[in-house]
Amino acid sequence: MEKVKVGVIGLGRLGMVHMEHLVTQIGEADVKAVFALDQAQLDYVKQNFGVATYTDYKALIDNEDIDAVFIVTPTGLHPEMTVYALNAGKHVFCEKPVGLRLDEGVREMERAVNDHPELTFQLGFMRRYDASYKQAKELVQAGKIGDIIYIRAYGIDPISGMESFTKFATDNDSGGVFVDMCIHDIDLIRWFTGLEPVETWSLGNTIAAPHLERIGEFETGVATLRFANGMVATLIGGRHAAHGSHVELEIMGSHGWIRVAQEPEKNFVTLFTDAGVVRPCMQGFPERFMQAFLDEKKDFIKRVQEKKQGSITMEDGIRALVIADACKESAATGKLVNI
Amino acid sequence: MEKVKVGVIGLGRLGMVHMEHLVTQIGEADVKAVFALDQAQLDYVKQNFGVATYTDYKALIDNEDIDAVFIVTPTGLHPEMTVYALNAGKHVFCEKPVGLRLDEGVREMERAVNDHPELTFQLGFMRRYDASYKQAKELVQAGKIGDIIYIRAYGIDPISGMESFTKFATDNDSGGVFVDMCIHDIDLIRWFTGLEPVETWSLGNTIAAPHLERIGEFETGVATLRFANGMVATLIGGRHAAHGSHVELEIMGSHGWIRVAQEPEKNFVTLFTDAGVVRPCMQGFPERFMQAFLDEKKDFIKRVQEKKQGSITMEDGIRALVIADACKESAATGKLVNI
Amino acid sequence: MEKVKVGVIGLGRLGMVHMEHLVTQIGEADVKAVFALDQAQLDYVKQNFGVATYTDYKALIDNEDIDAVFIVTPTGLHPEMTVYALNAGKHVFCEKPVGLRLDEGVREMERAVNDHPELTFQLGFMRRYDASYKQAKELVQAGKIGDIIYIRAYGIDPISGMESFTKFATDNDSGGVFVDMCIHDIDLIRWFTGLEPVETWSLGNTIAAPHLERIGEFETGVATLRFANGMVATLIGGRHAAHGSHVELEIMGSHGWIRVAQEPEKNFVTLFTDAGVVRPCMQGFPERFMQAFLDEKKDFIKRVQEKKQGSITMEDGIRALVIADACKESAATGKLVNI
Amino acid sequence: MEKVKVGVIGLGRLGMVHMEHLVTQIGEADVKAVFALDQAQLDYVKQNFGVATYTDYKALIDNEDIDAVFIVTPTGLHPEMTVYALNAGKHVFCEKPVGLRLDEGVREMERAVNDHPELTFQLGFMRRYDASYKQAKELVQAGKIGDIIYIRAYGIDPISGMESFTKFATDNDSGGVFVDMCIHDIDLIRWFTGLEPVETWSLGNTIAAPHLERIGEFETGVATLRFANGMVATLIGGRHAAHGSHVELEIMGSHGWIRVAQEPEKNFVTLFTDAGVVRPCMQGFPERFMQAFLDEKKDFIKRVQEKKQGSITMEDGIRALVIADACKESAATGKLVNI
Repeated sequence: MEKVKVGVIGLGRLGMVHMEHLVTQIGEADVKAVFALDQAQLDYVKQNFGVATYTDYKALIDNEDIDAVFIVTPTGLHPEMTVYALNAGKHVFCEKPVGLRLDEGVREMERAVNDHPELTFQLGFMRRYDASYKQAKELVQAGKIGDIIYIRAYGIDPISGMESFTKFATDNDSGGVFVDMCIHDIDLIRWFTGLEPVETWSLGNTIAAPHLERIGEFETGVATLRFANGMVATLIGGRHAAHGSHVELEIMGSHGWIRVAQEPEKNFVTLFTDAGVVRPCMQGFPERFMQAFLDEKKDFIKRVQEKKQGSITMEDGIRALVIADACKESAATGKLVNI
Repeated sequence: MEKVKVGVIGLGRLGMVHMEHLVTQIGEADVKAVFALDQAQLDYVKQNFGVATYTDYKALIDNEDIDAVFIVTPTGLHPEMTVYALNAGKHVFCEKPVGLRLDEGVREMERAVNDHPELTFQLGFMRRYDASYKQAKELVQAGKIGDIIYIRAYGIDPISGMESFTKFATDNDSGGVFVDMCIHDIDLIRWFTGLEPVETWSLGNTIAAPHLERIGEFETGVATLRFANGMVATLIGGRHAAHGSHVELEIMGSHGWIRVAQEPEKNFVTLFTDAGVVRPCMQGFPERFMQAFLDEKKDFIKRVQEKKQGSITMEDGIRALVIADACKESAATGKLVNI
Repeated sequence: MEKVKVGVIGLGRLGMVHMEHLVTQIGEADVKAVFALDQAQLDYVKQNFGVATYTDYKALIDNEDIDAVFIVTPTGLHPEMTVYALNAGKHVFCEKPVGLRLDEGVREMERAVNDHPELTFQLGFMRRYDASYKQAKELVQAGKIGDIIYIRAYGIDPISGMESFTKFATDNDSGGVFVDMCIHDIDLIRWFTGLEPVETWSLGNTIAAPHLERIGEFETGVATLRFANGMVATLIGGRHAAHGSHVELEIMGSHGWIRVAQEPEKNFVTLFTDAGVVRPCMQGFPERFMQAFLDEKKDFIKRVQEKKQGSITMEDGIRALVIADACKESAATGKLVNI
Repeated sequence: MEKVKVGVIGLGRLGMVHMEHLVTQIGEADVKAVFALDQAQLDYVKQNFGVATYTDYKALIDNEDIDAVFIVTPTGLHPEMTVYALNAGKHVFCEKPVGLRLDEGVREMERAVNDHPELTFQLGFMRRYDASYKQAKELVQAGKIGDIIYIRAYGIDPISGMESFTKFATDNDSGGVFVDMCIHDIDLIRWFTGLEPVETWSLGNTIAAPHLERIGEFETGVATLRFANGMVATLIGGRHAAHGSHVELEIMGSHGWIRVAQEPEKNFVTLFTDAGVVRPCMQGFPERFMQAFLDEKKDFIKRVQEKKQGSITMEDGIRALVIADACKESAATGKLVNI
């Protein structure tokens, strides 16, 4: 098959991961151009990967001979960039979430996706590609744990990232802990159960990082979700974990439970020292999900080649955003919110 | 010091544990008499332990030369028995919870306790005596994990106990999952934090045991508790665990987390078989808390000898009951409930 | 049944454990007298437990109205004390090992035991009473892991005990790492397999504690044992563990493996801190085996009452000593030694 | 830099892994040709990867415009193929071990490597590239565990591979458990310590697979190695693990221990079922070491480009083989063997 010619839009931490994967590990992709605002980043990729560089994403899309774009910019830019790319006839891989809230921009993005069924659109909920979640999903579907009673999901970033997050959230609208962090687990819960929550009571606090109050962010958010069949889910998002990047998910079923990553072991090393028995931990989500980040792109590229739609849809993005938005509203008002 | 002469009121599963501990492992206690309704049980203890037996608890209290009673009967009987014993001048060790709900009986019990400061009263929240919780409490108090952000507590009985629970709850008012099960963790959360929750949204379902709906019981209950300082707690009570007795508690702090019993390992055995790496699990709370059940009684007996008040008070019992009651109300109405 | 009147001979760390167990937790035993050389120890037990005290063990045996003695003195004294007690008509519970080497004293002790079949003799290989080893033994016997291929056993004391051990071993003949430490695992291997090793190559070093060389002690000993059917065992004894008391045993079978205590978790607490995921460890064998120390005595007392022989015999003691001696000889000469 | 043009010699299970890595994940390598005897394999790679195919390895080396070869054939063929390739001016990546025994062929291979310092030669001890072993090595080098006292290494294949191994070892000389399996750990021990063992007592049995006796193979081998400074190592190789591929290594140091892969967890999933708490296991070494297999080749390709020697040398291969040979001799004769 012919290689898929791509452009990468955005070169932040995650953009660089995608960039390097596409260049060095995905033979079927051929990176032609990148967009970023930072000249140092552009120089770096020009020098190391020999690709064209742009500081105007529209120019990249208009001028380059590319088939697809990877949109890895701040969330607020996802809708307009997706719309522009689709209208220009490019396949789109867009990072999560689709937008900061369910506004007209996101609705327009939805329309653009629907108007271009001939183009592959895929959303970056990469956890669906993780080997552990995939095994969990298989176990659930095979009925190994019976009916699902309760789900608990933690997505808690390491405290070591607090400073850079504070800077980012001061300059940008992060979306808040539910939209920015919990949305991954919202997607996973929808994926595992096939169900939609109907009501939430959500709460947030800044106990571990009082300075976040000034910029209107919760450090920790706790969302309780009710489903129509009685199932309940608890989501905990946060940015305070002393030990590392703690992304844990548990599914309680009537015949068994599945717990994914109850301890974020970095590798197979166990230390026996005067501190006790110690397992070193993962320090960031890229480390935890590197293979999933790679596999989601391989799959997208293959789907483009095979003229198939993406595995994770705009509808998935909108549903997750609606739920995260409801959590946000509940946490802001202190009230129960229907979803 | 002189031995403390005691009567044991109630000989169910837990009553028998208390009985055998008192006779065989607590040298400072001298069991004189027991009360039960079941003649076979009475015959068994008469024969094995040579104590006087009663089918009328008042007669036991009135006739026997005892200093203290252990009340281990169905919860609904705790208030009247405690009142009767205190008024007869007996020290009282009473199993949790103080009652099924905060009614006049419990208020009368409270007055009786307050009217008899000369008598030792202690409530059976035995988990406070468990070595792991004690270490957790010490770590919290020493500031090792910083300020508490969030607490999660599971108290989930093994599915193997479902049949006997169903029988019990058909014939008796169990109090429901929040009052019967979660109350232990409610007490622990108060103990760890020194704080009281101010609001709850609680939910319940019978997904794993639909037959419980007929007797008005939830199989699983999920209570989200809000505290005035922003702290949040999630309690999960249930009776469906396929693997054993899962009593787990986690405290997230601003500088570290503590997790107690994330896996209910039965002992130190690990099996490596074609099923994978397997840790056998505890099958019941008596196994998990046997030492705590012993230590709480040793401490009570010592306090009686030293004319001290009990370590866990009537106030602790009432506060926990009020919270559990609020969870129950919320789960019944689907609304937020102030506590 | 009548209580068993006992004398405790020796009040070191382990003697005190036995003493307190007998007084406070074993209702069927009645401690009448103790022997020790240290007056402070004697004063302590006299005051706290109200028992007669002796600095001459023969006087204790001759003068006191006792049925049984617990011998918890330095190993070198076990033979003569056992012989004296048996000849005086007392049941004997003797700590392991039976002696420092297979000399005439041990042979005399063996004859005394054989000459007094009417008296209960039991050796203190308490690990056979540990719940984890008992479950392992049941799994082996039930054929759950098939035929045994290989056994690995670690018995490594915490480095925190190095100073007191050095003092002890300077003043006393400890027996060396194989006789003093590995003998527990030698006994367990015999118990699990029912087989005797036929040859050994053993090695020792003082890498972690060079000062031990001056007193003729190995810090770490490694014994490889060959069995006639091809089975192999490796024993590691030592005194250097930074993290705690590491007593681990693994049985590889043709259909599965059993590992006991692969991590010496102190309790159910897991800490998630900037050091990683940490399990605090046990700091000494009394903590690890407290229940086994209690249960072996309960069983011995019951056997005395029921006029049965002890569960762990003089023959067990001699076989274990012969094997440990062979390891010692191999480590001293560097040669293969037939057992 | 220019891409390195390579030929792959051998397409067994591991050969195919190397092949696919080179084609799909190592951008700097350009696979031109492969050698195999099996036509189906050749057809498969021709069709899928479009490379030239050979059933005569010399023809491949002679005719193709390649810079380097990857030799992934049965061990006995490594020497002659390496010699031929080096003499033809090709860089060589050769799978472990260098040969089945230290015979003239291996000596000739050694001479060829020494005669061609201008060509990169690297041996496939891929474990040195594994993240966990690398962290362990760093911890050792940083002095975090003090001086090394004892090392234990397990390399035990899953029982599920027994049938195919039996077929292979019936038709080929596998080298036996020490040369074929333990050699990885022999290399790691040399790498971690920088020391060479001086004496061994090794043992083997066929308890778990008696049929192996007919083809002169041990199922399990146990090698005890003595080092001049007193350090001791135990190696266990075997093919009987019911639970998966158990490759574990432990380093006991005077200030701490490191254990790598004490449980071969497949991923982050933990199951809580009526079987207990279960971690699914890895079922083969390719799964365990996939990333290391990739990284060793990336490094080799880079070294070729940079005209550097390989990271793992012929000398490493010979030293490891000498040690494994000594273990084999000891196990055959039952005697101590000097190395």
